[in-house]
Amino acid sequence: MDPSQVKIPPTKDLTVDNITENVLRTNAVCEDERTKYVLERLVSHLHDFARETRLSSREWMAGLQFLTEVGKICSEVRQEFILLSDILGLSILVDSIDHPKPPGSTEGTVLGPFHSHEADDMAHGDCLSRDVQGEPLLVVCSVTDTRGRPVEGVKVDIWETDSTGHYDVQYAGRCGPDGRGVMRSDSAGVFWFKAITPVPYPIPHDGPVGRLLRLLRRHPYRPGHMHFMFEREGFDHLITALYLRNDPYETSDAVFGVKDSLVVDIGRAGPEYAKKYQVPEDHALLTYDFVLVSDAETSALRERNSKVAMDHLGRKVKMVNGLPVPDLD
Amino acid sequence: MDPSQVKIPPTKDLTVDNITENVLRTNAVCEDERTKYVLERLVSHLHDFARETRLSSREWMAGLQFLTEVGKICSEVRQEFILLSDILGLSILVDSIDHPKPPGSTEGTVLGPFHSHEADDMAHGDCLSRDVQGEPLLVVCSVTDTRGRPVEGVKVDIWETDSTGHYDVQYAGRCGPDGRGVMRSDSAGVFWFKAITPVPYPIPHDGPVGRLLRLLRRHPYRPGHMHFMFEREGFDHLITALYLRNDPYETSDAVFGVKDSLVVDIGRAGPEYAKKYQVPEDHALLTYDFVLVSDAETSALRERNSKVAMDHLGRKVKMVNGLPVPDLD
Repeated sequence: MDPSQVKIPPTKDLTVDNITENVLRTNAVCEDERTKYVLERLVSHLHDFARETRLSSREWMAGLQFLTEVGKICSEVRQEFILLSDILGLSILVDSIDHPKPPGSTEGTVLGPFHSHEADDMAHGDCLSRDVQGEPLLVVCSVTDTRGRPVEGVKVDIWETDSTGHYDVQYAGRCGPDGRGVMRSDSAGVFWFKAITPVPYPIPHDGPVGRLLRLLRRHPYRPGHMHFMFEREGFDHLITALYLRNDPYETSDAVFGVKDSLVVDIGRAGPEYAKKYQVPEDHALLTYDFVLVSDAETSALRERNSKVAMDHLGRKVKMVNGLPVPDLD
Repeated sequence: MDPSQVKIPPTKDLTVDNITENVLRTNAVCEDERTKYVLERLVSHLHDFARETRLSSREWMAGLQFLTEVGKICSEVRQEFILLSDILGLSILVDSIDHPKPPGSTEGTVLGPFHSHEADDMAHGDCLSRDVQGEPLLVVCSVTDTRGRPVEGVKVDIWETDSTGHYDVQYAGRCGPDGRGVMRSDSAGVFWFKAITPVPYPIPHDGPVGRLLRLLRRHPYRPGHMHFMFEREGFDHLITALYLRNDPYETSDAVFGVKDSLVVDIGRAGPEYAKKYQVPEDHALLTYDFVLVSDAETSALRERNSKVAMDHLGRKVKMVNGLPVPDLD
């Protein structure tokens, strides 16, 4: 490139104390305000992390080698960086920030690395799982908006492990999807299907993230749960899951996904449910009423939360495409 | 694993506000004090970064995909994570923290991704570079300790690009090392060799790090420089480089490596040098006196700096294996 085109403000003689401001000034050449702000915060925290830990060259190299291995093990069916984000609590935090929930609505939780887009469409009453070793479970749910009105035609994506704690995509020799399906809520906002009772299982721990967990003396287990994802125009995309109460890992989920409001009891079908849904009496039963938040409510709440957070930083904020950037005027 | 062995303190009902303390409490099960402290600071900064930027799920995913690509492109001869650390100013910061320099000693700078362990041993006066297109340069240097005493037998590792701005390892079809060599200082602390005048060159920018630089509107160039690495028992390992004054990229080095004290002028050999080192008069000449710091001086300075940094955080510190951890007593 033509050196006369260099527009970077001059930096020189960098020290522990002035390196951060120099990097920020260099990056400030960026014209996109959001990118510039995200990089400013990223560099500031990265540098403060090194300064506050007095990070040694050896530790720095170990960290870079760890990240390299995390990247290397990623494949079409394994995303180790998501897993790393999950076990550090970053995934659940980002979900909570991006999908704020007003009181009374259904909370979100981590997507996890096992969602897949190849699930078949299901009719009401269909079986989600072909695993005959699992304990049969009738699932009857409804979807309403925050004013209690049923929402029809919501696309609901559901996925769970088999009775050994493995998702279909974890089997190399599988033929087609299993333990997952997509259905739509009916005019009463109801959707129902047959599944198996979720079991606890370990996240993949044969890679670098598993090694980190062992180093930290943490276990890799998640409590038994069933994933749900809700999509309908006009409503904020909801990624959530229901967790079984009294699971041995209920309070030590390796990926910090459990929220009180998402913990459920497995009930038993009484005569009415048994007749209506054609299962034997006393059949295991899971019911839940999901409450979706409109896009408008979500945007307003997200913007309000952003202003509070930027106030804490002592910075004036303006919103660009729904995301905060410092307002320099 | 046996769930009764779970020693993780209970976490539940995580929110934007309490997720960090929950993750820290979980990681605190770790028995290694230094690991625990580094992870505590890492998680705190990672979470604050997300909270302060109001990081969106889309941005989070873009970030994880970027890191995955950085990992994927790494190979035996390319370390893209080092490059990423370099362009964010982290590498130079960590070097400054881990290798603090008292006044008058030679400052360190970034190692860069092109050091290799396959350099040949050189005798004084040997040629570092076989590139006949380069401008010949006589290099005459000395090594002393901080009291000005010559240091003999220092292993000096030197590497530079060819005249097109490429290191040997960047050529797929190369046969053996070039532009690099290892020599030892003599009894007067002197080492000298023939090389070529360094030229500016871009860091590898055909990968994800190059994409990030373009997004930030930054160029990938480094000013012309020659790398030096010094090793001798009893002295702190010194990784440094000398930069040419008035290089077009002197004040906008893509990896923030330039320090005032490492910027040099290319001189011309007078009659004495010409005769002593058997070069024509007016031959291009680079001279520099390197000052090494003893291990003991470095440790003391590193520890003093650590205490100041931990004071800023309002935390009592104790040193474990030369690195700080909070002192809880």
